[in-house]
Amino acid sequence: MTESIAGTAEAIRVTVRAYLAALASGSSAAVVDLYADDATLEDPAGSEPRVGRDAIAQFYSAIDGAPQQTELMSLHVSGRSAAFHFRVRTRVGDAAYEIEPIDVMTFDEGGRITGMWAYWSAADMRRVG
Amino acid sequence: MTESIAGTAEAIRVTVRAYLAALASGSSAAVVDLYADDATLEDPAGSEPRVGRDAIAQFYSAIDGAPQQTELMSLHVSGRSAAFHFRVRTRVGDAAYEIEPIDVMTFDEGGRITGMWAYWSAADMRRVG
Repeated sequence: MTESIAGTAEAIRVTVRAYLAALASGSSAAVVDLYADDATLEDPAGSEPRVGRDAIAQFYSAIDGAPQQTELMSLHVSGRSAAFHFRVRTRVGDAAYEIEPIDVMTFDEGGRITGMWAYWSAADMRRVG
Repeated sequence: MTESIAGTAEAIRVTVRAYLAALASGSSAAVVDLYADDATLEDPAGSEPRVGRDAIAQFYSAIDGAPQQTELMSLHVSGRSAAFHFRVRTRVGDAAYEIEPIDVMTFDEGGRITGMWAYWSAADMRRVG
């Protein structure tokens, strides 16, 4: 059904934008709320997967109280999955760092994240201030 | 071993650039040579996978005799996998079309492609001439 496919794509776009807003907010709870209960996360892709919301919550706890700037550069929805290129700028003490990873996510029917793979390496990080 | 990891990352970068050059050349054989024998391909991601070089060769036969312009916009290597954002401009009759997909690939030790997932949808295609 074309309408249902379009609905899924729109739900996915909404979740990706909510994800970047939640990352920026410095609240890990807001990020974790976007994940399905049995979701898996690989960050960086190829590392040991974190499985389930508790493990995922532990991973994102690093952002608590550390607001960041995020910007969506490109988003491609493909069926129930999406790849997106985005920018994160974060402060560590007096320094500002920027990285522009590509994330891949899969989604359930309601647009909740069921899988996440982050593509980046240390070489992609640069100091910008 | 840091040196081996760096070597893998460099081999992956070489393969991705060779892949875009081969796509641009309009020779499917040049593209298929970059794949491992038992590779899998999902284009678009989420569709039925094509498994093995014969199935992959059949998929790429569509580019034979149809040179395209390709441009690498962003490449992120993560262990034995990579995600990259690129632009393809292609002519169909008098019209020119452009699309900027994100592809994810996995690689073997020699830098050959073992898996490919292309993230894009029809909505991403636009006429540019």
